[in-house]
Formats: sequence, C-alpha cells, structure tokens
Amino acid sequence: MDFDAFFSRNARAMQPSPIRKMAALINAPGVISFAGGVPSPATFPDEDLRVILDEIVRADGYKIFQYGVTRGLEEFRSLLVEILAKRHIRASVDQLMITTGSQQGLELLSRILLDPGDVVLVELPSYVGALACFRNCLADMAGVAQDGDGIVPEELARVADRLQREGRRVKMLYVIPNFQNPSGITITPERRGQILEIAAARNILVVEDDPYGDMYFEGQDPGRLRPVKAFPGGESVVYLGSFSKVVCPGLRTAFLAAPEPVVQKLDLAKQAADLCSSSLDQRLVFEYCRRGHYDRHLGEVRRFYDGKCQVMLAALERHMPPGVRWTRPKGGMFVWLTLPAGLDAETLAIEAVRDLKVAFIHGAPFFVDGSGADTLRFTFAKEGTDKIEEGLRLLGAFFSRKIEAAGDRGRP
Amino acid sequence: MDFDAFFSRNARAMQPSPIRKMAALINAPGVISFAGGVPSPATFPDEDLRVILDEIVRADGYKIFQYGVTRGLEEFRSLLVEILAKRHIRASVDQLMITTGSQQGLELLSRILLDPGDVVLVELPSYVGALACFRNCLADMAGVAQDGDGIVPEELARVADRLQREGRRVKMLYVIPNFQNPSGITITPERRGQILEIAAARNILVVEDDPYGDMYFEGQDPGRLRPVKAFPGGESVVYLGSFSKVVCPGLRTAFLAAPEPVVQKLDLAKQAADLCSSSLDQRLVFEYCRRGHYDRHLGEVRRFYDGKCQVMLAALERHMPPGVRWTRPKGGMFVWLTLPAGLDAETLAIEAVRDLKVAFIHGAPFFVDGSGADTLRFTFAKEGTDKIEEGLRLLGAFFSRKIEAAGDRGRP
Repeated sequence: MDFDAFFSRNARAMQPSPIRKMAALINAPGVISFAGGVPSPATFPDEDLRVILDEIVRADGYKIFQYGVTRGLEEFRSLLVEILAKRHIRASVDQLMITTGSQQGLELLSRILLDPGDVVLVELPSYVGALACFRNCLADMAGVAQDGDGIVPEELARVADRLQREGRRVKMLYVIPNFQNPSGITITPERRGQILEIAAARNILVVEDDPYGDMYFEGQDPGRLRPVKAFPGGESVVYLGSFSKVVCPGLRTAFLAAPEPVVQKLDLAKQAADLCSSSLDQRLVFEYCRRGHYDRHLGEVRRFYDGKCQVMLAALERHMPPGVRWTRPKGGMFVWLTLPAGLDAETLAIEAVRDLKVAFIHGAPFFVDGSGADTLRFTFAKEGTDKIEEGLRLLGAFFSRKIEAAGDRGRP
Repeated sequence: MDFDAFFSRNARAMQPSPIRKMAALINAPGVISFAGGVPSPATFPDEDLRVILDEIVRADGYKIFQYGVTRGLEEFRSLLVEILAKRHIRASVDQLMITTGSQQGLELLSRILLDPGDVVLVELPSYVGALACFRNCLADMAGVAQDGDGIVPEELARVADRLQREGRRVKMLYVIPNFQNPSGITITPERRGQILEIAAARNILVVEDDPYGDMYFEGQDPGRLRPVKAFPGGESVVYLGSFSKVVCPGLRTAFLAAPEPVVQKLDLAKQAADLCSSSLDQRLVFEYCRRGHYDRHLGEVRRFYDGKCQVMLAALERHMPPGVRWTRPKGGMFVWLTLPAGLDAETLAIEAVRDLKVAFIHGAPFFVDGSGADTLRFTFAKEGTDKIEEGLRLLGAFFSRKIEAAGDRGRP
C-alpha cells in the first residue's frame, strides 16, 4: 500500500521536533548535554510520591483505576481554584480543565480555535512544541520580536495591524511570559498590560503558557511575574499551568484556565482525544498538592536550578569568547546565546556533539520567520557543576576557533 | 469576547457524547444502570497494582517520573510483540505505539489520515467515540449494515463501490470485530477474510479496534476471534488493543500495531498531542503483564462478565415482552436490543431513568445514517444479579405498556 497517498494535509505538514530528532546523538553515553529541556530527576520527590501512591491505592483503588471525568478530577479542580488565586487569577471550577500535560492543552486549543490559514502571533523565538500544534492545524504563524523585556508591544501592534489590513484572520497571540523556553526572557509587568490592550483592541485571543512561573531564583521579585490573565481585562486570556517542572513530567498532569465557552468546547475535543487523563496521575499530583508538599518542595526546586544557573552563567563568563552574548535568566531552565553573525549554530551543534561530545540545541527551529541561525539554547537543568564547567570550556574554545576562521574567511 | 466567532470548523462540528450527556441522570444515586460502558471496579486488580507500584517507584523512581519516548516504553513495546504473537499478529517494535487509551489511537489515526470530506466506512451501529474522532476531522461517514455474523460483505462492497463511483475518497474502514460496542456482535472468520479482500481491492485502509477480544465467555471458540490483521493480506491493517477492560481504564494505556510509515506519522502527531503517555501508567501496566498477572487475571475477568451476561440474558427471557429482540453475545460487555417498530428508544430512555430509575442508552447515536431509533444498548458490566433482575422486570413491564399503547394508537 502506498501510505503517502493516504496521509491528510495535516499529516503532510507535520515535522519532527528538532530536539527529538537529535535525541539519539544527545543521549549517547558520555555526552555532556546542555540540549533537551527536561527537568532533573534529582528534583523528583520519589519518596513522597511513593508513600502517597501506597495510601491512595489502599484507600481508593476502585476510583483511581476507573475512567474519570473528561475535565479532570473535581477535587483537584477545586484545589486549582486556590492555587490560581495565589497567582492572582480568579477562575471557577467550570473554567478549569486538567490536561494530559500542557502539550495537550496547546493541542486542544489549536484544534478548537484554528482553521487552515488562520494566523497565530508568536514570540521570536518561541516554544517548538506549541509551534507544532499550530502548524499541524495548518495555521500560519507570524513572529513578533522580543528584547530583554520580552515581546515588544510596538512590534506586536505593527505585525497584527499589517496582517489585519491584509485581510488575515489573526486569531491568537501565544506568549510564555516567565523565563521563556527557549530564551529565558521574562516580560515586564508594564508590557503585560500593554500586550493585553493591544490584543483586546484587535480581537485577538491571548494564550499564556506558564510552566516556569513558580521556578524563580533569588533576586527575582515574584510580584513582577503576575500572569497576564491576572491583569485588568485578562478574563478572556487562556492560561496554561503545569506540574511537570516542579513535581515531575512523567505524570502527565497540567491544567488550564479559560472562559467557560472555551472550556466547554475543549471538553468535547478532549472526549475524542483521550476521554480523560490518567486517573492515577491526577489523584497522585492532587494529593501531593493537597498535603502541602508542592509548596514545601518549591523552595528546594528553586535553589536547585538557581545554583545550576549561577554555575552556568559564571562558566559562560569565563569561557565564552568576545562576540558571544547570552541572557541572564532569573528562573526557569534555559540560557539563550547569540553568536557573532555569520556563524551557523546548527552546523556547530552537529560538530560539537560529534567532535566534543557536548550537546546543545540550535535556535533556528524556534523562529517562525527563518531567522535565528546564529542563536542556540543551553539548559542548565541536566549536568552537575564539573560537567557544566568542562562542557563550556570545550565549547568556548570551539566557538573561538570558529569565530577566528569566519573572520579569516571574511578578510579580503 | 464572542467566543463562538473564534471556534474552528472542526470545533463547530464537535458534538457531546450521548452517553456523557446523560451522565448526571445515569449516575444519580439509586439508579439501576445498564447505561455507561465502563468496566466493573470489582475486576480491578488493586492489590497487585499497589504492590507493583511500590516496587517500581522504589527501584526506578527517576525513570518513572521522567518524560518518556513518544512511542512508548521500549521494554513494553518488546513485550507487546509477544502479546500480539499470541493473537497471531506479527508486528515488530517499530510497528507499535503505546497510546493514552485507544481513544487517542483513534484520534491520532483520524488526524493523520482524514481530510475534510474523506469518507470512513463504519458498521451500523458503531462505537460513538470513534465516530466523534472522524466527525471532528470533518470526514463523512457511510454506514454498512451488520447482521448476526457481523458486517455484511456484499453491503460493504456495494457501499464502497457506490461512493467511489461518485468520486468520493473512501479512506478507511473502521470495524470492531469482537463483541462489538454497542451491538455485542462478532464477525465470523469467513467474513474477516472477505472484508480484507474487499478493502484491498478498493485501496481502503482497514482499522480494527479490538478492546474486547480477550474477554470471551464459555462456549466461544477463541480460534474464531483471530484478528483481521492476522489474516493473509492483513499487514496493512491498523490494529488497536487496550488494557482498559481487562486491567483497568484509569491507567490510560493502550497500543496499536500499524505499518511503519503510519507509525512514523503517528509519532509526529503524538509529539504535538501529549509528548508521551503517562510514564507511571505505562510502567505499571507493563510490569503487570511482564509478571504474568494479566494472563492469570484474564480467567477471572472472563468468568465475572460471563456470569453477569448469563444473568442478564435469563432476565431478558423472563421479562421482555414479545416483539423485543436482543443479541446473545459470547464476550464483551454489551447486549443490543431492538424494539418493535414505532417505539422511540430515546424517549423511553429518558422516561425510564426519570420514572423507573433504570438507565440504558438509546441506539440512534451509534448509527451514522439516522436509523436505529428503535434500538438500545444494555451493559451487564455494572449491576449485580438482584439489580439486573429488578431493572429488567421494571423495564419489561414498561416496554409492554409502551408497546400496547403504540398498538392502540395504530388501530383504526
């Protein structure tokens, strides 16, 4: 059978994730990895989870192993009302949905909102997993520049206006305001308010993805992380939160808060997508939060990643040659680098993992406008102090050689 | 914000499940329920699962709580090769994918195969959860009649030929060969071979959904349940299997076997859909199977549902008035009833749950051609002997009154 002839237009638009594509190289033994973007298992609260598992299965096995409600465990949604209130978001139980990871939230939103040819505005760069959802619905994506303060409001207005003038249906603005994946950039409070106004004036739905907001480091004022949805006029914003980074990602448990008509439609989409998320995972994460473990664990997680981030930033100072620039995140898992113009990060990434056994992710796939060839992403989540030092020493020397060679080529 | 204006064409096609829609009525306290279609918690192996959970989290917590491979746990896929071999299906690890329930398998298949306007051939009646996936992709569905031996090959050929003559793109034939939900009907081996030939000759992909094949009762020859995919020429068939009915459904763990190009495309679709299924659920179900629990538990599950089915069939004999017909399944969870023409099962279902506190599901939503108003589905999975007897006594008398009233109305 010629299967290619069977695939849908959606399927033909699907592309492999640049990260998953390099997985075999990155995960080879002996490789120092600043690639990937997965939380460190050192932070997983195994023992607390084991104790809870044992208790809940003894007490409630028949419930835990049965199908659940599509929107998610009711008690958990009630608790999420309180969790969101601490983030200054007011949402009722009926405005909440538990999803099989935030990835599912993004997929379901794309399904219910995007027709082929609709436009989604995204940050330059943005999260590749979200871009895949938009692309798989045959939506078009338009990039908006960021600077150190996040997405640039004037640029946002300009891009949206241009598209609307061209008669395009601009449906959605997708932002990751806190410690963005991949850039590590955080949007300032002033800009959060402005973004909301710009979107509202143009009838564009704001989708706010916030997996990292709780993972801030020393020196970060948490008041400046107030979600876009918590700003005046933010009621219509769709807010996505996750337990993947602070608890663990293998329990596919995330949530979203959205206006009720949106949640009702998402419910229909989720019925077809997987009927319900894992009852066991939901119950486990719910109990973990209900018993106060989450709040206690948070401090530990923050210190863990803060420590690693400082190690990486110090090593970058020591080893990176002049001309290489990077972000200094106050939370999350990522540092974003820009190489001197003319260097191609994808070529370097392939060479580095092959020759130096040091892995990172090139930046281009995070850009929807074809730019970003000179950028790359490091995570500080995986490696310990010695390997961060060693890996960046090797990469620093490697980048120096490349910059020099490019300079030589550039000479008359 | 006017959210209706935001929804995609897909979203506007989405419809609530007729079962989930009636959930509040069905699940009210004191209701005897032959509705729903969920496995009985009495069959869930809580204690074995608890012991395994404790051991695997102690041994392997960091793996269990981490993201997994999109296609699913490799060891589990290796074991599935053996599980499928027992069902006479030859599939390599690369032809397998673990999904977040079979519902996700159906959804992903629909996404990668169906363009708007493509046609899916389905049995009359068929599983509403699958129909929702097809409908959400804006595919059209064409029904093919069943009799007591399953889907009628001559009808299948006739419907497919007519559509192809009309220039329609008939992409997929969706069948549930064993103890079908909702009808309880099993396709004969002779017809399985014929179906395959008819589909192959017309370049139609066969999707075989088999959640119930292992749940056969005494008197059923398992040799007659050989999957369509195991027949000569079945290599291109997509086969879906599930652990929801024999282990439990709350651990969202199912699998599919398909040609490698299809699995590769499904992998891309699943990356966007949820990155990976629950690592904990997968590991738990894998260990449950690996340790031989599944095979041991199966006998118990078969006896459990067999016993209940016999109770229901005997009570139907005792209480149903003349003119009511039903299937006599040799496995699965469902009996299918046909009322005398002129009675509307939906009206009766609403009255029965309101007035008698006995719930069942009317058949019409399982038919894609608008027929089936005189049909309904009973499950014997939920209630015990006394309640099955009591519920059917009440319904028998109720149907009698309705038949009589309809007869009176029919007289000159």
